[in-house]
Amino acid sequence: MALFTPSDSDFEARVRASFDRQAFMATIGATLTRVEPGAIEIQLPIRPNLTQQHGFVHAGAVASIADSACGYAAASLSPADTGVLAVEFKINLMAPAAGDHLIARGRVIRSGRTLSVCQADVVAVSDGVEKPVAILTATIMTVRDRPEVVG
Amino acid sequence: MALFTPSDSDFEARVRASFDRQAFMATIGATLTRVEPGAIEIQLPIRPNLTQQHGFVHAGAVASIADSACGYAAASLSPADTGVLAVEFKINLMAPAAGDHLIARGRVIRSGRTLSVCQADVVAVSDGVEKPVAILTATIMTVRDRPEVVG
Amino acid sequence: MALFTPSDSDFEARVRASFDRQAFMATIGATLTRVEPGAIEIQLPIRPNLTQQHGFVHAGAVASIADSACGYAAASLSPADTGVLAVEFKINLMAPAAGDHLIARGRVIRSGRTLSVCQADVVAVSDGVEKPVAILTATIMTVRDRPEVVG
Amino acid sequence: MALFTPSDSDFEARVRASFDRQAFMATIGATLTRVEPGAIEIQLPIRPNLTQQHGFVHAGAVASIADSACGYAAASLSPADTGVLAVEFKINLMAPAAGDHLIARGRVIRSGRTLSVCQADVVAVSDGVEKPVAILTATIMTVRDRPEVVG
Repeated sequence: MALFTPSDSDFEARVRASFDRQAFMATIGATLTRVEPGAIEIQLPIRPNLTQQHGFVHAGAVASIADSACGYAAASLSPADTGVLAVEFKINLMAPAAGDHLIARGRVIRSGRTLSVCQADVVAVSDGVEKPVAILTATIMTVRDRPEVVG
Repeated sequence: MALFTPSDSDFEARVRASFDRQAFMATIGATLTRVEPGAIEIQLPIRPNLTQQHGFVHAGAVASIADSACGYAAASLSPADTGVLAVEFKINLMAPAAGDHLIARGRVIRSGRTLSVCQADVVAVSDGVEKPVAILTATIMTVRDRPEVVG
Repeated sequence: MALFTPSDSDFEARVRASFDRQAFMATIGATLTRVEPGAIEIQLPIRPNLTQQHGFVHAGAVASIADSACGYAAASLSPADTGVLAVEFKINLMAPAAGDHLIARGRVIRSGRTLSVCQADVVAVSDGVEKPVAILTATIMTVRDRPEVVG
Repeated sequence: MALFTPSDSDFEARVRASFDRQAFMATIGATLTRVEPGAIEIQLPIRPNLTQQHGFVHAGAVASIADSACGYAAASLSPADTGVLAVEFKINLMAPAAGDHLIARGRVIRSGRTLSVCQADVVAVSDGVEKPVAILTATIMTVRDRPEVVG
């Protein structure tokens, strides 16, 4: 994995405060479990209210934590007075998401001034054993000078 | 839009029953508002519990209704004793999702025995005016002979 | 389809000149057959030197004309002294590409100052009958103030 | 990287013979430089006939070698009497492709009976130094019992 030096030494507090404002993460029950420069981990306990019709976690919930992990991986490297927005993402679903909880691990592949490319792996954990569930690649935009999109 | 003839005349009841089993749709507050052969509409009232850090609807919630709209568009054309799973999807986010509610309109582009290609447009509605928010393309797999993936 | 007003009244000549500099289009034998504001058509005669192992047109060649059609659809709406670059694209391949020639029709879905979202449909034509082959969605960046990326 | 055991001990000869039938790879000048179980490397010398309008390698040519690297990574693990087809791929373009040659390294992320998920990294090499250019994720289908799609 590429190693990055954050431009904002206070990146962790900024990322954690922003995550806490993502009401949707609380709605689905996701928590931010790791914040490193260019690398983010989000966990999601698997509960019945997250499922699709066959009892697996809905692909949209899987994508939600993977997208947030990518966005915050990019945000961890962006300047303090900026915001990030997802431009696009694509997810390949490799196995039904079932087990105790999901872990999405996002990392920056290419960090740019305006656009960053990030990738997240999602695994399902059952009895401590991880199984790959999905991979997501995303383009994340760093937004400057837009007061409504900061933090 | 291509017109399709469903292989299962009871497709609407089957799709509606399956949607009702998607607990995640109830969790986010989405409802199934249209079921036609190869075309599905899902609506999502915009509430504070769906937002990301800037107050827009989280991209994962946008993707969730678009993915379900694609999956059920494919399911509306599949035989009665099958199930559908998303293989992959990609979403382009074109504008912040804000307003009164979102509408995801999914349709089948190519219907295959095993794999179908579907597309969903998502619009945000404010005071009755629609604004494009996202487009999603998906590969949906029709699954046969797997009792845990039916309906 | 959305209708667009080009910001550069000389867009057609600019797009055609740029296409003529895409040596790769000449290498594969593609020609620019339509230039409208926000809409581009590229044709590719099917020849044996474009094939993959089973004799169909290689997915990379299909993607090449679809990507160029998207890029020039965006370029047709961009100011005169800018350039365009593809940020990402995704292609769904719906049927083997075989026949007399391919047509890629690209159009702008959302035109932005920096980022545009475009889509291209690719059809294979045999004896005058069109068959859908692929759909591609792309994010195209308009680049300013970079002398090496103009036109 | 996951390690795989090929189901066909003669996979390397089969993959090399198939690559040699991809006329499009010869047209662009690409060569197959490594064949391991689940991992493929393709090299592409950068020549003027591959360029887009600014003199970089066309994104379609970059995608072509990355797609072939993914397809053959999947094919290296598939049974002897099958064929592979790309269902979809998405590419993120991270830097202009310029230099001496490109290398696409494809690998299998998840190997399935019918569908495999593969990823390819593309780097540009200048004076022996590699620079990341693109990442591509693909869904590859293994096709059985279709005589026109074998090998």
